[in-house]
Amino acid sequence: IERPRHPGMAKNTSMRWRLPLVCLLWEVAMIVLFGVFVRFSPEADAHWEEEKREMNLTSDIENDFYFRYPSFQDVHVMIFVGFGFLMTFLKRYGFGAVGFNFLLAAFGIQWALLMQGWFHSFKNGKILIGVENLINADFCVGSVCIAFGAILGKTSPIQLLVLTLFQVTLFSVNEYILLNLLHIKDAGGSMTIHTFGAYFGLTVTRILYRPNLEQSKDKQCSVYHSDLFAMIGTLYLWMYWPSFNSAISEHGDAQHRAAINTYCSLAACVLTTMAFSSMLQKKGKLDMVHIQNATLAGGVAVGTSAEMMLTPYGSLIVGFICGIVSTVGYVYLTPFLESRLHIQDTCGIHNLHAMPGLIGGIVGAITAAAATEDVYGKEGFIKAFDFTGAYQTRTPSVQGGFQAAGIVVSLLMAFAGGALVGAVLKLPIWGDAAAENCFEDDVYWEVPEDEESDAYHMHSPDKSASP
Amino acid sequence: IERPRHPGMAKNTSMRWRLPLVCLLWEVAMIVLFGVFVRFSPEADAHWEEEKREMNLTSDIENDFYFRYPSFQDVHVMIFVGFGFLMTFLKRYGFGAVGFNFLLAAFGIQWALLMQGWFHSFKNGKILIGVENLINADFCVGSVCIAFGAILGKTSPIQLLVLTLFQVTLFSVNEYILLNLLHIKDAGGSMTIHTFGAYFGLTVTRILYRPNLEQSKDKQCSVYHSDLFAMIGTLYLWMYWPSFNSAISEHGDAQHRAAINTYCSLAACVLTTMAFSSMLQKKGKLDMVHIQNATLAGGVAVGTSAEMMLTPYGSLIVGFICGIVSTVGYVYLTPFLESRLHIQDTCGIHNLHAMPGLIGGIVGAITAAAATEDVYGKEGFIKAFDFTGAYQTRTPSVQGGFQAAGIVVSLLMAFAGGALVGAVLKLPIWGDAAAENCFEDDVYWEVPEDEESDAYHMHSPDKSASP
Amino acid sequence: IERPRHPGMAKNTSMRWRLPLVCLLWEVAMIVLFGVFVRFSPEADAHWEEEKREMNLTSDIENDFYFRYPSFQDVHVMIFVGFGFLMTFLKRYGFGAVGFNFLLAAFGIQWALLMQGWFHSFKNGKILIGVENLINADFCVGSVCIAFGAILGKTSPIQLLVLTLFQVTLFSVNEYILLNLLHIKDAGGSMTIHTFGAYFGLTVTRILYRPNLEQSKDKQCSVYHSDLFAMIGTLYLWMYWPSFNSAISEHGDAQHRAAINTYCSLAACVLTTMAFSSMLQKKGKLDMVHIQNATLAGGVAVGTSAEMMLTPYGSLIVGFICGIVSTVGYVYLTPFLESRLHIQDTCGIHNLHAMPGLIGGIVGAITAAAATEDVYGKEGFIKAFDFTGAYQTRTPSVQGGFQAAGIVVSLLMAFAGGALVGAVLKLPIWGDAAAENCFEDDVYWEVPEDEESDAYHMHSPDKSASP
Repeated sequence: IERPRHPGMAKNTSMRWRLPLVCLLWEVAMIVLFGVFVRFSPEADAHWEEEKREMNLTSDIENDFYFRYPSFQDVHVMIFVGFGFLMTFLKRYGFGAVGFNFLLAAFGIQWALLMQGWFHSFKNGKILIGVENLINADFCVGSVCIAFGAILGKTSPIQLLVLTLFQVTLFSVNEYILLNLLHIKDAGGSMTIHTFGAYFGLTVTRILYRPNLEQSKDKQCSVYHSDLFAMIGTLYLWMYWPSFNSAISEHGDAQHRAAINTYCSLAACVLTTMAFSSMLQKKGKLDMVHIQNATLAGGVAVGTSAEMMLTPYGSLIVGFICGIVSTVGYVYLTPFLESRLHIQDTCGIHNLHAMPGLIGGIVGAITAAAATEDVYGKEGFIKAFDFTGAYQTRTPSVQGGFQAAGIVVSLLMAFAGGALVGAVLKLPIWGDAAAENCFEDDVYWEVPEDEESDAYHMHSPDKSASP
Repeated sequence: IERPRHPGMAKNTSMRWRLPLVCLLWEVAMIVLFGVFVRFSPEADAHWEEEKREMNLTSDIENDFYFRYPSFQDVHVMIFVGFGFLMTFLKRYGFGAVGFNFLLAAFGIQWALLMQGWFHSFKNGKILIGVENLINADFCVGSVCIAFGAILGKTSPIQLLVLTLFQVTLFSVNEYILLNLLHIKDAGGSMTIHTFGAYFGLTVTRILYRPNLEQSKDKQCSVYHSDLFAMIGTLYLWMYWPSFNSAISEHGDAQHRAAINTYCSLAACVLTTMAFSSMLQKKGKLDMVHIQNATLAGGVAVGTSAEMMLTPYGSLIVGFICGIVSTVGYVYLTPFLESRLHIQDTCGIHNLHAMPGLIGGIVGAITAAAATEDVYGKEGFIKAFDFTGAYQTRTPSVQGGFQAAGIVVSLLMAFAGGALVGAVLKLPIWGDAAAENCFEDDVYWEVPEDEESDAYHMHSPDKSASP
Repeated sequence: IERPRHPGMAKNTSMRWRLPLVCLLWEVAMIVLFGVFVRFSPEADAHWEEEKREMNLTSDIENDFYFRYPSFQDVHVMIFVGFGFLMTFLKRYGFGAVGFNFLLAAFGIQWALLMQGWFHSFKNGKILIGVENLINADFCVGSVCIAFGAILGKTSPIQLLVLTLFQVTLFSVNEYILLNLLHIKDAGGSMTIHTFGAYFGLTVTRILYRPNLEQSKDKQCSVYHSDLFAMIGTLYLWMYWPSFNSAISEHGDAQHRAAINTYCSLAACVLTTMAFSSMLQKKGKLDMVHIQNATLAGGVAVGTSAEMMLTPYGSLIVGFICGIVSTVGYVYLTPFLESRLHIQDTCGIHNLHAMPGLIGGIVGAITAAAATEDVYGKEGFIKAFDFTGAYQTRTPSVQGGFQAAGIVVSLLMAFAGGALVGAVLKLPIWGDAAAENCFEDDVYWEVPEDEESDAYHMHSPDKSASP
């Protein structure tokens, strides 16, 4: 039964020692670092009763857990089921999509708890974590899942872990610059998560350009049921996006408002995506790729402004535009990027995250610049933009300017970081597959034997190579 | 590669200009109407700090967002994943099931926010929306998803959008009559959502009767994996139904009680569904159609009474009965309706929504009529039925009578509305497919090429028509 | 079209009268018992306004519903979608996995509400139920779902119902001994749910040993898409496990802490599972069986200690170890148990629940024994272990001893109970299938006709038996 698979495969893709080594060493490092640094926040610590007295809280329901845990769980589902299943559309890469996403996210959240903890939750030499840290760690990993979309099917699991290590680090630095140094608002992460994550991933895939990728073109497509699996991912991302954009907003009206704005933007986005998907195909048929992806662009594009007074109709307009931009991107821009700029973007993250992320940053800057005390109320105005302390005198227009600067910083970090990481991943030591074996689970996974006789595996490498 | 598909197809099913036109124009209309009318409710507005002071609230946790948002998200999942995947059981209509459901629901929630807003949240010329409006919009769209179940596979996406436009409008009128004019309780929507939605859909499908539908009989069935996809929908509907029936109940005991009653009813319903599914098949084998659908009837049937003091054993009895009624309906009534009354009900919504919805209305009327101050407590009695203001003197038995009247009103609205909308959809301009191409994604969707060589596509229209 | 299926099948597997009889009679019994015993808890009863005054609560948000309902829904998803879909990995047993799990859980939660109610919520002759009872009923049924994993594919639905009846009963007795008599903590159920459930199931499958099971070996494996369906189950279990372990912890810090610890443990577990899955396969390829199961062991193993001050790095260590133990178990122990001890464990629950459950019990005992007033704070210490009333003077080390005793009691109950139930299930009256028809949906389900011509059903019994 044991026979040579992939006879034409020159590269050594065996993960037998490399993957275990990386996983075990890095996990031991996590344990040591957590042991040194990570403790519970006062709201998760057994001293909570004392904390409650000190903060004059009368009820356990005031614990941040009850404000944010349901949103956290929704975000958690988006990262693991949402992104994981969205990428199962490829006919022979479902294990890799959902399995490698699982691996990189499980590592990434640990490293993100540390990196973000050092920047934001460091007190007396300890990182104190609570539910908001878990959400932020999931957010950070979300940007890695986005970048994974660009290189899906073309990298080894070790490359993905290396990518995660670097990207989480750079994400945290970029986030610190934006949120702390520039003092800008980006609750749903249009800039920090989507713009950064997408341009980072696109730069990486550009550097890892594979000239012979058309050798696996027959596997870079879907089958009927893989498209349905992908729709599970799409719908969970779409449904829970209001939780994503509101998860770390201020308690009360800001969380409430962010959820409503996102709901509206996403609803509008579905309509324009369907419209353009049909319009741009000569027989007017809808394309699953668009439905699976472009319908989500509306969520990306209100990531910065959802917690602001964007208003429901403002959200509809943003969603309207992004459905169009994203769908048109899939039809015209993705092929152009591949053929002319050598950017091979497996999932089309440029259309789903990069452009809508940029739009989101711009919409956020405009919404911030247009804020008035009249619209927000005197207290609401200060609370919404945290114009306190050193920022007491900042005006909306200045805030708008800083928001815009945040876009530029995110882009620069993405390009520079992506170039660096791309160069590291290009080293010939990571066990990535040859071009003809891309988009094929068989390289890194035990695939059920009887599958080989299935109708939908006519193009498996074993068979095409057998005499 | 481009060759004529569907040579035998006389009808023009191309959506190329029609669908984009409808989607874009209607979405623009939504933006204009939202711009004129829709603003944030005080709990989602940046003036919330002032509101809090005015209402003497001491904590942000008192924001309605924290009472209802988790239930909202569960309802959201039911509408998009629940209904969407429940309908993927057809072997060649998965894209249409989940994709068209996505389209109509995304449009429907916007139009419902407006329609329901004008009736219920209109203040000083503006519709003020908060999380409860989002839930109600999802509820309203739920009734459209139900109607979609009757005509699944036989209509074009434009017809579904037209249906949605009309049905949401009529739903809102009916809801206004029931809740405001008759002052009846229907938190889980046995009458407003299920009875109305199902009889509306059945009337539409009766009017759209296709005499030659047996030409596509080979596609009106499932394959092994499509049945598993459908079970995803079933389970999410089943699990989250307690959230559905409690989502808009009064804070506190009513929400709590509604969840418990629904949980009990659904549990009992599974047992009797399994019992009758096995009993009615001559070899005693279970039928996936029953498990996918009849197990949910218990949730439908406590929609009105779940927030009342139905008690857990009362809920079990309701679930017990509905599992039987629904399963027997699938075995005997659906074929009868089709052959004798020409009601072609693709998903059997008559068994899952229509009959259990009626039962739910009746159970609600009886439970209301049987209410006593002893069982509810003096305050609880008034609060449960909102016997305040003009309704201060209404007695339980009168309330029961009004509840019963609500069933009749819902039925009349459904028949009249369904007849009207059915007539509109019969116009030969909407691009619906010919009888032999029903239940076939290929008509409106780009379907993966290699599927055609798959074993489970032996009956695709291209092939059967090719010489 | 009707032709003899399973010609080689000697046993009568028809459920036609047996299954309906059991379902209907038992459901009637439930109704009677609920009618006699079950009422709403004060927080779900219409007298809540009076209760609020008595308890000096100022807001409806203090209702336990708002503390626990989101966690309840996550647990509910784990039981029905999590366990149900996790077991769909078999290529021809998806209906049975998800359908029978649905059946036994729907019955089990009703019986658990009664059994646990008599032990824990009995007041003035009535069982008063609220959201915490629903969670506990789901927990109890979780232990049945675990046991189902060992006998998956080899039992009739009636056997599963009988198993559920007995196991829920024994679970409740064991839980009462542990929580009330020994006064131990086990919020996430390492002992009560996992250790008990797994060793119970393993004992049952040992007694039901089938010497000729290799006759259906060709069906005891997965196909490509069945592995993806199983990943839906895996991910929902993995993502929602923090809710599972925190669902019934004390309000405030304990719930918060339990979620964080579980999140950390699960993350570490993924890394070591991937490492060992790759390391133990000679080409270094990852095995879906490990990814689907061993990644969850970290959640099991912090079930007792998650609400304690285990600390994040302690959780990482537990997850680290359990990923290894569980994966090694799949590779070496499962085949050994089958060949030497005649324990046929379809899903490998020994690796996912039994060993990690034991580890969880031990970790809990150690963590309790190591507790100090310094770490917990004076109040926190008393609250965490409920050292009040008769237990006022219990010390941590004594508590640790009692915790350890809880493991032993759970094991004894599991072995004795499993032996008893196994003997009952061995009676030749339950309609289980012959060895060659195990792992085959066709025995108890109407399976879509056209499937038989599909590529992935080459080994269906009909065909292999036909001349």
